[in-house]
Amino acid sequence: MSASARTEGQPVARLEALADGVFVIAMTLLVLELAVPDVAGSELAANLSALWPKILVYMISFVVLGVYWMGHHYMFRVIRRSNLTLMWLNVLYLMGVAIVPFAAALLGTYPRMQVAVVVYGAVLALAALVAYAMWRYATDGHRLVAPDTNPDLIRYVRHRIAAGPVVSGLAIGISFVSPEASILLYALLPPFYILSTRVDRFLESPPTS
Amino acid sequence: MSASARTEGQPVARLEALADGVFVIAMTLLVLELAVPDVAGSELAANLSALWPKILVYMISFVVLGVYWMGHHYMFRVIRRSNLTLMWLNVLYLMGVAIVPFAAALLGTYPRMQVAVVVYGAVLALAALVAYAMWRYATDGHRLVAPDTNPDLIRYVRHRIAAGPVVSGLAIGISFVSPEASILLYALLPPFYILSTRVDRFLESPPTS
Amino acid sequence: MSASARTEGQPVARLEALADGVFVIAMTLLVLELAVPDVAGSELAANLSALWPKILVYMISFVVLGVYWMGHHYMFRVIRRSNLTLMWLNVLYLMGVAIVPFAAALLGTYPRMQVAVVVYGAVLALAALVAYAMWRYATDGHRLVAPDTNPDLIRYVRHRIAAGPVVSGLAIGISFVSPEASILLYALLPPFYILSTRVDRFLESPPTS
Amino acid sequence: MSASARTEGQPVARLEALADGVFVIAMTLLVLELAVPDVAGSELAANLSALWPKILVYMISFVVLGVYWMGHHYMFRVIRRSNLTLMWLNVLYLMGVAIVPFAAALLGTYPRMQVAVVVYGAVLALAALVAYAMWRYATDGHRLVAPDTNPDLIRYVRHRIAAGPVVSGLAIGISFVSPEASILLYALLPPFYILSTRVDRFLESPPTS
Repeated sequence: MSASARTEGQPVARLEALADGVFVIAMTLLVLELAVPDVAGSELAANLSALWPKILVYMISFVVLGVYWMGHHYMFRVIRRSNLTLMWLNVLYLMGVAIVPFAAALLGTYPRMQVAVVVYGAVLALAALVAYAMWRYATDGHRLVAPDTNPDLIRYVRHRIAAGPVVSGLAIGISFVSPEASILLYALLPPFYILSTRVDRFLESPPTS
Repeated sequence: MSASARTEGQPVARLEALADGVFVIAMTLLVLELAVPDVAGSELAANLSALWPKILVYMISFVVLGVYWMGHHYMFRVIRRSNLTLMWLNVLYLMGVAIVPFAAALLGTYPRMQVAVVVYGAVLALAALVAYAMWRYATDGHRLVAPDTNPDLIRYVRHRIAAGPVVSGLAIGISFVSPEASILLYALLPPFYILSTRVDRFLESPPTS
Repeated sequence: MSASARTEGQPVARLEALADGVFVIAMTLLVLELAVPDVAGSELAANLSALWPKILVYMISFVVLGVYWMGHHYMFRVIRRSNLTLMWLNVLYLMGVAIVPFAAALLGTYPRMQVAVVVYGAVLALAALVAYAMWRYATDGHRLVAPDTNPDLIRYVRHRIAAGPVVSGLAIGISFVSPEASILLYALLPPFYILSTRVDRFLESPPTS
Repeated sequence: MSASARTEGQPVARLEALADGVFVIAMTLLVLELAVPDVAGSELAANLSALWPKILVYMISFVVLGVYWMGHHYMFRVIRRSNLTLMWLNVLYLMGVAIVPFAAALLGTYPRMQVAVVVYGAVLALAALVAYAMWRYATDGHRLVAPDTNPDLIRYVRHRIAAGPVVSGLAIGISFVSPEASILLYALLPPFYILSTRVDRFLESPPTS
């Protein structure tokens, strides 16, 4: 490994390690909201079936964090260098990711309260906005990416990230009419997002030689 | 590292890192179900001995997660490439793994309730079914494995994974007669599984050149 | 990899892995202090807005841990070898880092109590003092760093680390007048710290050939 | 990397990763036993000072886990190959490590109860016994270590590991007279252990060429 690779390359590796750690812990902490009911045995089945909103929010949040993790992953397959600004944007981003278990616990406990839907959507939207800032910062003028990075890929990822706050804003708007409809939107989004992903198309040919 | 290695090889590394993280956190979170009793000092010993069902379930679940982790590990010693479908199957699989601490807490708290045995078995069975789908997807037509991968190894791993849902289904069936017998089955399974493993036989000769 | 690289190089890698793990878990555990209120639905919004001191302390602590993580990261871009003394200083340091979620939960619950501010500041100061000892130990006589390491860089990092206990001491002093003013100081510090960082200047040219 | 290195070398890497993860999470979960007191503000200082047994046990347990982690680390600097038996001994070992936060919470809550000292000591002793079995299994006939591994090193590490159960047994014995004296022994052990470590002597010359 050359000295310059060490100077500029390693920070990206540790950025990714920090991000992977926060994502994986946040995803696994989601389960803590599924508290075991403290009831007489005969009422257990009834109490467990009352857990379904929490289980639904667990599943949505796990997959949403998976979507965000995969987005971060693709961003850092293109970003090749790091600097202090990118590091701090990354910390700010992870601060949003790490708060998702709280927002999920809130939504799972109060699935019919509009304020819970708003907090959940706001957390996801803010994190996506920081991701957007990271991507713009890293790619504007090819600042931290290889000079020959495909501009179509840069634009494609930018639009994908921007979709996050738009959908969260939509869900917040719908919550004024029906909080349940917002949750449905959150539930439908990840499958739609996953099915529409075309980033592999850009990566079949290697991003840089 | 060649460009194509980067394009196709790295995702497997991060898939494994994500999986390792979820497994290790889920295994370590199991301990949180062992709450310290809040009693007068003189009753502590009696209260601790009442913890034995939780400790048994802790041990079973830790080893079961170890079995699943080892299975994932062997799968990804053979799988050489990744794509979006595999990534999402992996996220779905980890969603099942990450919920095991909840199922374990439930079973440890209500070891005599059939519904707890059913939930525990269903979580393990569903996770194993997703693992089965991952393996079929990756190996059918050698889609994501080396072309010269030993077909016997592929078949062997497939049968091993399929054993998981079969046993979980059996345990669920037995629970209609006796939940305690189901827990006994869960307790006996890992040692049997471990002793019968022969995957090393296939790996003594390197899987691909 | 040569034998001597294995003997001396790998411990640094595992030191960093241990540190990364403790940092990332401590950062993510901070969210557990944000408990979901258990209230009638109509009072949820009011109760959530009462969470703001906890959210402020969450944000401060996340960024402070980010600052400490980044400092550790830069220290170990220069430290090239490890030995038992360094390993144990590192464990001692991480013992301080791992207790931050407790100090943060205390400060978030009792933001107006001087004792909470003192505990929070003392934890941060003690961790920084251990980091200072690590840095002195590793760099005195270039004990564990490359012989040609820039002395200006060594001095610069030393002064940066020393700033930590000074500020924490200042915050503790101010808390005798006003605990809220101390929290304000903690909140202002990370942005100031980040903006004043100049470590990249030293690393633009590779630290050692 | 040759094919055989992949077949035999990688499992050690993932064994270490699994162990590092369990250690680091167990160390960081120790902080969860330090619950923030729920009292009127004026009584906070008094309640915090009542936390000192928990803080002492936190510090002892963190350093003890550090000792165990370092021991695992040195074992796997010598162990070069893995197989299913070693993997399962490792999982069993980690099952003991992962339960330390429970034993620590018990001891911190009931520092004057003999049963808490016994449980704490038994957990540490059982984990150390499994480590002893791992080391014997890996080194007997140089089964999983390099053929030219220094026999003095193998013996030295064996004696060091064996010291663990001896001391835990001693602490359990003393607890029949005074639980507090047992805790004192646990507190004195890590510094003594650290100061007496001479493993570096063996590793200054590379373990294998």
